[in-house]
Amino acid sequence: MPEPVSGFVLRRRVQFRETDAAGLVHFSCFFNYMEEAEHALWRSAGLTIFEREAEVHWPRLACGFEYHAPLRFEEEFEVHLCIVELGERTIRYACHVRRDGTKIATGQLTAVCVIKRPGEPIRSTPIPPEIRERFAAVEAAA
Amino acid sequence: MPEPVSGFVLRRRVQFRETDAAGLVHFSCFFNYMEEAEHALWRSAGLTIFEREAEVHWPRLACGFEYHAPLRFEEEFEVHLCIVELGERTIRYACHVRRDGTKIATGQLTAVCVIKRPGEPIRSTPIPPEIRERFAAVEAAA
Amino acid sequence: MPEPVSGFVLRRRVQFRETDAAGLVHFSCFFNYMEEAEHALWRSAGLTIFEREAEVHWPRLACGFEYHAPLRFEEEFEVHLCIVELGERTIRYACHVRRDGTKIATGQLTAVCVIKRPGEPIRSTPIPPEIRERFAAVEAAA
Amino acid sequence: MPEPVSGFVLRRRVQFRETDAAGLVHFSCFFNYMEEAEHALWRSAGLTIFEREAEVHWPRLACGFEYHAPLRFEEEFEVHLCIVELGERTIRYACHVRRDGTKIATGQLTAVCVIKRPGEPIRSTPIPPEIRERFAAVEAAA
Repeated sequence: MPEPVSGFVLRRRVQFRETDAAGLVHFSCFFNYMEEAEHALWRSAGLTIFEREAEVHWPRLACGFEYHAPLRFEEEFEVHLCIVELGERTIRYACHVRRDGTKIATGQLTAVCVIKRPGEPIRSTPIPPEIRERFAAVEAAA
Repeated sequence: MPEPVSGFVLRRRVQFRETDAAGLVHFSCFFNYMEEAEHALWRSAGLTIFEREAEVHWPRLACGFEYHAPLRFEEEFEVHLCIVELGERTIRYACHVRRDGTKIATGQLTAVCVIKRPGEPIRSTPIPPEIRERFAAVEAAA
Repeated sequence: MPEPVSGFVLRRRVQFRETDAAGLVHFSCFFNYMEEAEHALWRSAGLTIFEREAEVHWPRLACGFEYHAPLRFEEEFEVHLCIVELGERTIRYACHVRRDGTKIATGQLTAVCVIKRPGEPIRSTPIPPEIRERFAAVEAAA
Repeated sequence: MPEPVSGFVLRRRVQFRETDAAGLVHFSCFFNYMEEAEHALWRSAGLTIFEREAEVHWPRLACGFEYHAPLRFEEEFEVHLCIVELGERTIRYACHVRRDGTKIATGQLTAVCVIKRPGEPIRSTPIPPEIRERFAAVEAAA
């Protein structure tokens, strides 16, 4: 069994569609960057976060970003995502976007494990063991 | 029974997210404008183009745009959409985007009626009569 | 002189492009909804938030959303945006997304007033009086 | 001097934000895929297609796609872009999107070289020699 996964680094380039008339990446695009890193993290754990016919889904409870410096067209950057809390029903991620040594943005995302069955309301559920065992929260920095 | 519908005019304002670093609406956004007008046309006919549990869906066969003049942030414009062909299995639309008297872009879209059933491949199907009777193609200009 | 503006209610319908394969509005789209309401609030104050050749711009310092219930294709909803803090250099907004009586999401956004001059680094600046006098923060609920 | 460039193959994975409630990649996203390949083609020629302060820009004259098969979340695909015509003022591209051996979509894009100077209307211009010499149209298949 491979080691549980607690982080992922996505390397990415700014695409033209992600810029706006101010000449910078639009602030909403950072949520897409964070999600791309999340799904890559899941793949690196041998999992997929979304299967259309699956009962278990991962809607978002909360997310946010603080912005420190702009990103521009064609710049290369890194999205550092790590699991900071693996709860009974939720996963909480922290996200750091960097371009070379420059801090660009800092984000967080909380997703909740739910069950969707036809004709029933969506309800939260404990994270299934086959998913939980593939992940681990990072140790808090001392 | 209300008259069949063959056209719709959507009034819209350019949103900031639709601009790019060149300061103009990104060319891909016109496809979203055309689709918004298409769905408004369907609602004006008393229909919805998409229901998750429905068997009948309307994927796209082809689409395109020619661009005549730029659109900028906060400008107001109109999307004129009309049905130019109501085939056995397809609907073909023509689209004219205008800002005041200025021609901005000219587009077209062809959607095909398909049946999606679990475990079966998607296949095209004749347009159901309860949909067909709500639409009519515009007469070609003489 | 018209009254200063402290809030705006945007009425909107979910567009197909805003949904994702889970059948719901993608969580990142709420930031576009919040921004659409912000720009409509500025227009209702007789201002525009972005002019390409202007010196003053309004990049974002921070934003976030908490999600309470899903939105689906073609549903109509309201974005209630209000100014909760009018600082020396920043404006802070609170945002409530509702569908009929249902709480959908709660957000916040902080924008900072900056000066962009060719060849100079972007730097924050006090909000110009002709903008400041058009806005007022809402009174905190007792 | 390196060889002129006439094509590029972009390898890409479907991101969640690109799907819609029908469970497929939204048809408008293919224009973003085509543009990503275009900009990568320019980079492979040692050029960038957009510089904010440059006089020369490349707005779009026309584009379109025909759709042959759907793409779904997390699928990997290839965008084959090639220059099919290098005109005096325009570049015309053809685009083939494939997943393994399956034809997904076929597109085309025409961009025009323009000059933007403050206070002057945008006007088309012959492609500058330092750009022209870096590109070549593919030979038509016999």
